[in-house]
Amino acid sequence: MPPSPIRKLTPFADAAKKAGTTVYHLNIGQPDIETPESILQAVKNTDLKVLAYSPSEGFESYRVKLAEYYQRQGLDVSKQDIIISTGGSEAIAFAMQACLNPGDEIIIPEPFYANYNGFAVAAGVKVVPIGSTIEENFALPPIEAFEKAITPDTKAIMICNPNNPTGYLYSKEELMVLRDICLKHDLFLFSDEAYREFCYDGAQHFSALALEGLEQHAVLLDTISKRYSACGARIGALVTKNQDLYTAVLKFAQARLSPPTFEQILGEAACDLPADYFDGVLNEYRSRRDLLVKRLQAMEGVVCPNPGGAFYAMAKLPIEDSEHFCQWLLESFSHNGATVMMAPASGFYATPGLGKNEVRMAYVLNEDAINNAMDCLDAALKEYKTKFA
Amino acid sequence: MPPSPIRKLTPFADAAKKAGTTVYHLNIGQPDIETPESILQAVKNTDLKVLAYSPSEGFESYRVKLAEYYQRQGLDVSKQDIIISTGGSEAIAFAMQACLNPGDEIIIPEPFYANYNGFAVAAGVKVVPIGSTIEENFALPPIEAFEKAITPDTKAIMICNPNNPTGYLYSKEELMVLRDICLKHDLFLFSDEAYREFCYDGAQHFSALALEGLEQHAVLLDTISKRYSACGARIGALVTKNQDLYTAVLKFAQARLSPPTFEQILGEAACDLPADYFDGVLNEYRSRRDLLVKRLQAMEGVVCPNPGGAFYAMAKLPIEDSEHFCQWLLESFSHNGATVMMAPASGFYATPGLGKNEVRMAYVLNEDAINNAMDCLDAALKEYKTKFA
Repeated sequence: MPPSPIRKLTPFADAAKKAGTTVYHLNIGQPDIETPESILQAVKNTDLKVLAYSPSEGFESYRVKLAEYYQRQGLDVSKQDIIISTGGSEAIAFAMQACLNPGDEIIIPEPFYANYNGFAVAAGVKVVPIGSTIEENFALPPIEAFEKAITPDTKAIMICNPNNPTGYLYSKEELMVLRDICLKHDLFLFSDEAYREFCYDGAQHFSALALEGLEQHAVLLDTISKRYSACGARIGALVTKNQDLYTAVLKFAQARLSPPTFEQILGEAACDLPADYFDGVLNEYRSRRDLLVKRLQAMEGVVCPNPGGAFYAMAKLPIEDSEHFCQWLLESFSHNGATVMMAPASGFYATPGLGKNEVRMAYVLNEDAINNAMDCLDAALKEYKTKFA
Repeated sequence: MPPSPIRKLTPFADAAKKAGTTVYHLNIGQPDIETPESILQAVKNTDLKVLAYSPSEGFESYRVKLAEYYQRQGLDVSKQDIIISTGGSEAIAFAMQACLNPGDEIIIPEPFYANYNGFAVAAGVKVVPIGSTIEENFALPPIEAFEKAITPDTKAIMICNPNNPTGYLYSKEELMVLRDICLKHDLFLFSDEAYREFCYDGAQHFSALALEGLEQHAVLLDTISKRYSACGARIGALVTKNQDLYTAVLKFAQARLSPPTFEQILGEAACDLPADYFDGVLNEYRSRRDLLVKRLQAMEGVVCPNPGGAFYAMAKLPIEDSEHFCQWLLESFSHNGATVMMAPASGFYATPGLGKNEVRMAYVLNEDAINNAMDCLDAALKEYKTKFA
């Protein structure tokens, strides 16, 4: 049964209320888009007698289908390049554990997905941030910034493309710059492409795996969480053409035995979704982005670059401390019986003091909810100004 | 629909054949016992629209039911002491990451579950083995061995009870010895109790969590993999009364977002299995153990202590090198069209050279298969002796 390409939307925000106040959750990347029914049904159609370990690298049948999915993106990937991970999270952890030793350094343009820090800490790896700024729409930092940050301990550069939290979509030219740096200094390039399908305005995603000459250095980190609105599945993948690295990652994968069985079946079914599945989803997210950015840019003193991908927008607000502002929104403010929850951006910067007047918003709610949330934010900024100016 | 307490058994060994030869897989702990139908059905009965992230510590409803399960074992556990992990594997990794810094040491009686090494390497932790021996049935090493191994870098002692790979069931008295050592030197006690239900000959399992005075030091590592023959679910738990430790583990759990959703539903349903569910399973394993040990002890030159728990037996064989013997069994031997696959024990010892003439066998096959496998082993030992004496 093929899923409807037009997704029904449930108002996620309704699920969380604080004492009679509707809270619009723009703070986390949990989409309200329904998981395609056919892939949920695939789990229900299973006829297992023994829920046994799967192979540590994932079911072969799934890796075959997933390789075909990558091939449809024009990427030269075969099943023996893929290790199925327990969520994109584990793929990140595997990459850090297998490519870096404790004390080694990884360069990541900031702001970046805050959980990268957690995996770095667990692997004893030092994150070296280099700055991208809202004034430059969070484009890739200039090559000089990378050169300056590279030390003998640097082993890898990590990007998220399109980017969480900025929504920035790296261009092919920027990827080529990264390729040259990685080749010059013999560094791994970790590319988190969780949002690959979510590129707007006709832009094409360019994968790190498509970089000619970087085959031994590029490591793709992937997940089905956002692609199919299946965050709870915890199914991701690490993809590399570097067979020595593959062997090293496989050892870590073998230590944890296997990824979850039911959700691999779901992931495999997702590879069979019709090609137009993403059309409806993409249209929905693009409409939401257009609305959110239009509303934000119409607010006095707010700066919001138009994000080219993913489902996040960063905004600079006319305030001093977004942590205080976000907490005040939840604890002391409401507008038409509602308030809004956003992620203070300082959590995405490794450099202390940066991003203090920025917030990240995930446009994972429908347009009515976004409009109401923006009404709240607009009124809140005015009231906050009179109270804390 | 309650599951039948008598499980139907499928011959797992049949699934793997090498060129026309039946291979009896006694090498891994993948039971052939059917997963209770009611818990598989719980997954099929779900009516999710969005497969969303669960809380990082696991669904509250599951933690409530799991706490009740522990309470039925006489353990003082409530939902806020439990973090649901992605398999027992992740619980082990969390404990090492949260309790030890890179360079710290953990003492583990050897032989031990080989994957402990993988998690230690990932956390930069040094495993310090102390010896238990087949001659002493793999009982807890004497207190002097612990005292000698403890250094200022020692932060924890780890046991598996009942033990994989030895099948040894630690007594309450042995646990008390461990408690005293841990309190004296302020060490964590990690207790992997994956096989808690599998104790034979009327013996009662004694949990590390039941040790009076050790509440702040005891860390229970658990999994549903063996208990309900649900290895592919990847659902486990870390349980601790130490709230500082809980908070630290939760940070690692938050970095990886959540455990898999479908399998938590399965785990929650398992808490509702009738109390007599384990009777049938336990009887089955006990019969298999009795048969396996009887057959092994009847072979000339074979030493096999009677294991008190889990579903493993260690045997010393009249050979020099069990790695060579096991490989020869697979590549160059068959008896009545079959051969047997066992785990060479050297992989379970951290000290080089130990366990070279020992093997681990998992009695996860039915009695016919075990009898056939033992016929193979008996014939193989005789043929091997003539060939390589």
